[in-house]
Amino acid sequence: MTDAKPSARPAPERRAAYKAFERIQLRWNDNDIYGHLYNATYYELFDCAMTAWLSRNGLIGANGRPTNVVVENGCVFFAEIRYPGEVEVGLRLGRLGSSSVRFEMALFREGEDTAAAQGFFSMVRVDDDDHRPRPIPEAQRAVYATILR
Amino acid sequence: MTDAKPSARPAPERRAAYKAFERIQLRWNDNDIYGHLYNATYYELFDCAMTAWLSRNGLIGANGRPTNVVVENGCVFFAEIRYPGEVEVGLRLGRLGSSSVRFEMALFREGEDTAAAQGFFSMVRVDDDDHRPRPIPEAQRAVYATILR
Amino acid sequence: MTDAKPSARPAPERRAAYKAFERIQLRWNDNDIYGHLYNATYYELFDCAMTAWLSRNGLIGANGRPTNVVVENGCVFFAEIRYPGEVEVGLRLGRLGSSSVRFEMALFREGEDTAAAQGFFSMVRVDDDDHRPRPIPEAQRAVYATILR
Amino acid sequence: MTDAKPSARPAPERRAAYKAFERIQLRWNDNDIYGHLYNATYYELFDCAMTAWLSRNGLIGANGRPTNVVVENGCVFFAEIRYPGEVEVGLRLGRLGSSSVRFEMALFREGEDTAAAQGFFSMVRVDDDDHRPRPIPEAQRAVYATILR
Repeated sequence: MTDAKPSARPAPERRAAYKAFERIQLRWNDNDIYGHLYNATYYELFDCAMTAWLSRNGLIGANGRPTNVVVENGCVFFAEIRYPGEVEVGLRLGRLGSSSVRFEMALFREGEDTAAAQGFFSMVRVDDDDHRPRPIPEAQRAVYATILR
Repeated sequence: MTDAKPSARPAPERRAAYKAFERIQLRWNDNDIYGHLYNATYYELFDCAMTAWLSRNGLIGANGRPTNVVVENGCVFFAEIRYPGEVEVGLRLGRLGSSSVRFEMALFREGEDTAAAQGFFSMVRVDDDDHRPRPIPEAQRAVYATILR
Repeated sequence: MTDAKPSARPAPERRAAYKAFERIQLRWNDNDIYGHLYNATYYELFDCAMTAWLSRNGLIGANGRPTNVVVENGCVFFAEIRYPGEVEVGLRLGRLGSSSVRFEMALFREGEDTAAAQGFFSMVRVDDDDHRPRPIPEAQRAVYATILR
Repeated sequence: MTDAKPSARPAPERRAAYKAFERIQLRWNDNDIYGHLYNATYYELFDCAMTAWLSRNGLIGANGRPTNVVVENGCVFFAEIRYPGEVEVGLRLGRLGSSSVRFEMALFREGEDTAAAQGFFSMVRVDDDDHRPRPIPEAQRAVYATILR
């Protein structure tokens, strides 16, 4: 174990470990002063990929409703990513609870099979009025199940 | 244990659990379409607070050198934060390794004693030329130790 | 006339040319890969200063209503601005129409009397339901007039 | 002339008025609290389109060098743009000076022939060391001329 990589740190995964993919075009200003993506930008990319997948699969409307509240997220960084180009985001569900889901995602640089970063988003489905958790309807569970790990 | 809050989820901490504080002014466009801070923005705020503290304490120059590479970060969200106003970021060191540090931070809304969000950044000090880990010099370790948990 | 500065380009103004001031804290990620503020970020700063002034003076609510739609804006760049630090934004009204206003703003680096950039925002007050222009009420006109050029 | 649209305001142009096109994928967080693109984001999109065109045509390297300094930019907003989807950015050169260029651009929503917004960027080519204007080499002028208005 090196100091930089504590033992709890996961190893980078490959594309085959993910169930769905979204392509995202990088922007010039995604690069920070160091010439690579700013750490907060990785979350923006994960969030965009997840929203695109949810929308494409009819789990949220174009207006983003019903709301999925992010209760926790995180990212492990393996290799730098830099504009120009695109990234491919691999998605899968790590957990499908009664009113919550855990999305697990990885960022792949173009043409690469090993993840440059891996992240997760734990989200709770809430009612748009009272903001309280609501069970995920059966029809939606069936869709989510298609990308369950 | 409710579905929304898995047992592993930490409880919100209070100000007294942190060793240093940085104030950050919110911006109108920190709010997303839901009228509160976008999840990626929390990382921007954590990163800004950490950079301000490192710079004020002479651990990095105005140019951000030497570089601290983020190898992992994460955030648990307890309560929404919204523009206008400021947030106060509590900082402490959860771990002081030979060439790496783990910053632990919390976001406090103005006038509140309980964290609205808690995050961490694990960072490795690297050489600006070869990008390989470098030991943190003793003089710097002494500064870091002032906020060690 | 030099090629870089066409004759139509205004000269930088001084603080005395502005009627109100807002301070904005810069963020680490306001700097782009060149180590200075990204051009789009200037608009973010102008917009934040304008919103802060409008809100402080009761011309919009905390929710940003009623909406002021930006119909045109622009910026002339004189000197680079870079994190860390704050900028001061000078504001004045260049025009007070029946349902529209033209904000004129300048960005001043800390301790400097000459603008690093100058911009304008032409905005129309619209109804939140039908999105059509609405006259600015007399009581609000009186407030706007306090910063009229 | 209505109050909201001063006579100096240009009319929206059509695709045929532009010489080159770049597609840009919108992101969820491009929408602001009003559910449409934030004004500063238009500049980000213009800048991305311009950079993509310059890079594709060999006028700047992947590192963005040599630097083109923005000395002035502006935008007129005609119709709102909102995520999801893509925008197409029309580009042309309004002016080709000895060391400067004026890019004129328009944002088109998918499937639309009339611009939703029109902007310009006046840029000066500077030396990366002394930051002083440098003549645009003949070979590059020939490339720029292909999109001259």
